[in-house]
Amino acid sequence: MKKYQQLAGQISEQIALGVWQPNDRLPSLREQVTISGMSLMTVSHAYQLLESQGRIVARPQSGYYVAPPVAPRADAAPRPQVTPDENVDINTTIFEVMQASRESTVLPFASAFPDPRLFPLAQLTRSLAQVSKNAGPLSTIENLPPGSAALRHAIARRYALQGMNISPEEIVITAGALEALNLSLEAITAPGDWVIVENPCFYGALQALERLRLKALSVPSDVNEGIDLDALADALRTYPVKACWLMTTCQNPLGVTLPPEKKARLVALLCEHGAVLIEDDVYSELWAGREKPLPAKAWDRDDAVLHCGSFSKCLVPGFRIGWVAAGKYARRIQHLQLMSTLSTSSPMQLALADYLETRRYDVHLRRLRRQLAERKQLARQGLLRHLPQEVTVHFHEGGYFLWVALPPGIDAGELCVRALAHSISIAPGKMFSIANSGASFFRLNTAWGWGEREERGAETLGQLIRQMMK
Amino acid sequence: MKKYQQLAGQISEQIALGVWQPNDRLPSLREQVTISGMSLMTVSHAYQLLESQGRIVARPQSGYYVAPPVAPRADAAPRPQVTPDENVDINTTIFEVMQASRESTVLPFASAFPDPRLFPLAQLTRSLAQVSKNAGPLSTIENLPPGSAALRHAIARRYALQGMNISPEEIVITAGALEALNLSLEAITAPGDWVIVENPCFYGALQALERLRLKALSVPSDVNEGIDLDALADALRTYPVKACWLMTTCQNPLGVTLPPEKKARLVALLCEHGAVLIEDDVYSELWAGREKPLPAKAWDRDDAVLHCGSFSKCLVPGFRIGWVAAGKYARRIQHLQLMSTLSTSSPMQLALADYLETRRYDVHLRRLRRQLAERKQLARQGLLRHLPQEVTVHFHEGGYFLWVALPPGIDAGELCVRALAHSISIAPGKMFSIANSGASFFRLNTAWGWGEREERGAETLGQLIRQMMK
Repeated sequence: MKKYQQLAGQISEQIALGVWQPNDRLPSLREQVTISGMSLMTVSHAYQLLESQGRIVARPQSGYYVAPPVAPRADAAPRPQVTPDENVDINTTIFEVMQASRESTVLPFASAFPDPRLFPLAQLTRSLAQVSKNAGPLSTIENLPPGSAALRHAIARRYALQGMNISPEEIVITAGALEALNLSLEAITAPGDWVIVENPCFYGALQALERLRLKALSVPSDVNEGIDLDALADALRTYPVKACWLMTTCQNPLGVTLPPEKKARLVALLCEHGAVLIEDDVYSELWAGREKPLPAKAWDRDDAVLHCGSFSKCLVPGFRIGWVAAGKYARRIQHLQLMSTLSTSSPMQLALADYLETRRYDVHLRRLRRQLAERKQLARQGLLRHLPQEVTVHFHEGGYFLWVALPPGIDAGELCVRALAHSISIAPGKMFSIANSGASFFRLNTAWGWGEREERGAETLGQLIRQMMK
Repeated sequence: MKKYQQLAGQISEQIALGVWQPNDRLPSLREQVTISGMSLMTVSHAYQLLESQGRIVARPQSGYYVAPPVAPRADAAPRPQVTPDENVDINTTIFEVMQASRESTVLPFASAFPDPRLFPLAQLTRSLAQVSKNAGPLSTIENLPPGSAALRHAIARRYALQGMNISPEEIVITAGALEALNLSLEAITAPGDWVIVENPCFYGALQALERLRLKALSVPSDVNEGIDLDALADALRTYPVKACWLMTTCQNPLGVTLPPEKKARLVALLCEHGAVLIEDDVYSELWAGREKPLPAKAWDRDDAVLHCGSFSKCLVPGFRIGWVAAGKYARRIQHLQLMSTLSTSSPMQLALADYLETRRYDVHLRRLRRQLAERKQLARQGLLRHLPQEVTVHFHEGGYFLWVALPPGIDAGELCVRALAHSISIAPGKMFSIANSGASFFRLNTAWGWGEREERGAETLGQLIRQMMK
């Protein structure tokens, strides 16, 4: 093969790989001479060959461009699909479902996120522009662990407004609550340790246990009452438990919030057995009722609760900012962060600190809670209209998830696959369980509003469930 | 104790913890009634008590504020210090030195970062403002793993301009190169596996091995020649090595760049033994000479090299954006990211993609390389003026580190502690080594420019070394 053919082949491959996409400008002949080390003659021949093959087009006075696609490419059509695969594990399932729920052509009932149109993005953008303009160059490296002092201070003040005394020094800023939870677990455990999780629970907890090679004890959580504290006490008596990862307010996926006395007993129980509570409290700002529930952390007297929070569910998901109030573990967590991600994006931290300073956050939160409550009611009514009466739609105020129980024997995983073929995503119960107990449940996100598309989606779900019941 | 005394005590504690700082406005009486659930009378008494104790001050028409500090607090003075501690491990040392090097009162010879004043922050801020204004709300959740399509595409094009065919699909965007390297290692290994690192090497590699409970094989790297490939071949023959984590261009801390034929042989050797190369290439844009060196990845034919890059060392550290070109491992790495940090900040990704589109990046890089080369020369000359002639200052073009060899028997860790007492930070060699071979070396960052302060710093280092030689 001649040199110019080799070069043409290489550029063809780059086009096929998507490095150069339709209508992208290719490097000029002279640039290509520098890149390839070949002569102008050779490069020129290569471009002519590509042009004759219809892969690139010359535009006079401008240069060479990748040819526009002749016909719509087969892979341009939406292909939402959970591929059946005998090696599929739970992570693959979660990955597929979550990727699918992000496609704009797919109804995002499976989504973990609220509709970002509910968020004050314009105000946050102003804060971001403001801090970017004012921040000196050094600020870009000053926010290494534990993170921006201004933001930690703002978070400590929010705790104080709930009557909780947490020093900014105990707080570490993280990439969302997920990093906070993972680092907390890593700080407290070693591989092989026992850790208690709820069943069902946030799948991130199951993934973290798997990743850190921990042994899971699964304690049942009731859709109405939350975690079974007697079962928890049994587990603590029987096993040398290091930590317990729970959601105490607007539990994901059930939606249940533990009453104060149960939170108090939970902390007391864990303290008694020397186990640490990793409290996943990412929905706490989405509470319902007269006043914001206190986290279990409020009953902590012995640095036995690591409280993980986030702005992703109530203010802005894309900034990826969370935190952990870690007490004496803060330093260990900083070390672990320094080893793994180093720190969180500095402009994002400063922008959030600036926004929290405006005191608009609480105004936003009040409106957000009202909107989410309305949307949840609408979604519930829509589902009740279309799903067979054998289906139970469990409802809690607060948060934006509904937990739906299919008739016994109907598999929600199978429903998930069938629904996705109709561009509807749902989050099947087995995503939330290490035991096989969640098979007939699914979680449904109600935060994206309820319109005609959602109504038709509910109708389709109803039809699919009826087919499966036959 | 009466109720108002309890409340006053709680607020005093919050002030002591730093939740409310001097001159911060406290919640109003009415807000405090809501927070505490106590009566207006009780709250009013509590505030009066705090005022009489001098802890808070009332400002007419405005509210209550934390009293300004009476005298400078003892802890307000800079306290750069590496605390001697018999339990100190390598991570603690690194943590202390790195924290100290960020204090503006300390000379940052130990810093891992270049001077951010060399970076085009104004232009990046414009890009950030631009994308924040234009990005729809959905964009905030569209950049989950593998990250922004626009940014992955821009990175793939930069590879193509070096003649490397890498599809955007193979690229995962991460929180700096550090997350890319950690996830790569996690994707390829299981606890107990053997991994090859260089000696000396980037301390992040040692930390990652420790965190993932891997067994390290340390292969010597020569300050002039780089890694000893014969020793590497021996190690590969003797142990079932899973991966090898190396820097092939502007190695940290030595500064050495492997010649192309050595990179080719390295890849061939690893392929022959079924080991994967994790190529840490964060300094590649800071090359010296006529043209940008190819990474070892350029010789990869079997998806055996995971190439990790970053914008932190050459464009903007605080954005925390890196990537890995991971070939067939890209999907596994996405899964691991989804489990640990979920994703990188979305506005930061979009801002970088926007900036790279302006084609100003290469103009910036050319200027940056020139400035860094000048500063490195100045630093070298300054050190030669002041350090005893028994000290060797190893020099390579490219990057911004010098590797300094103290006379045998002089401990760089001890020098580090003594220098910090004079507000000078250096990075002692033992930070870069699992063997105890680095004790008489230190790394010196030359990217912050060389002025009178640096000249005095070099003078002090010279004096301290002479004292230790006596």
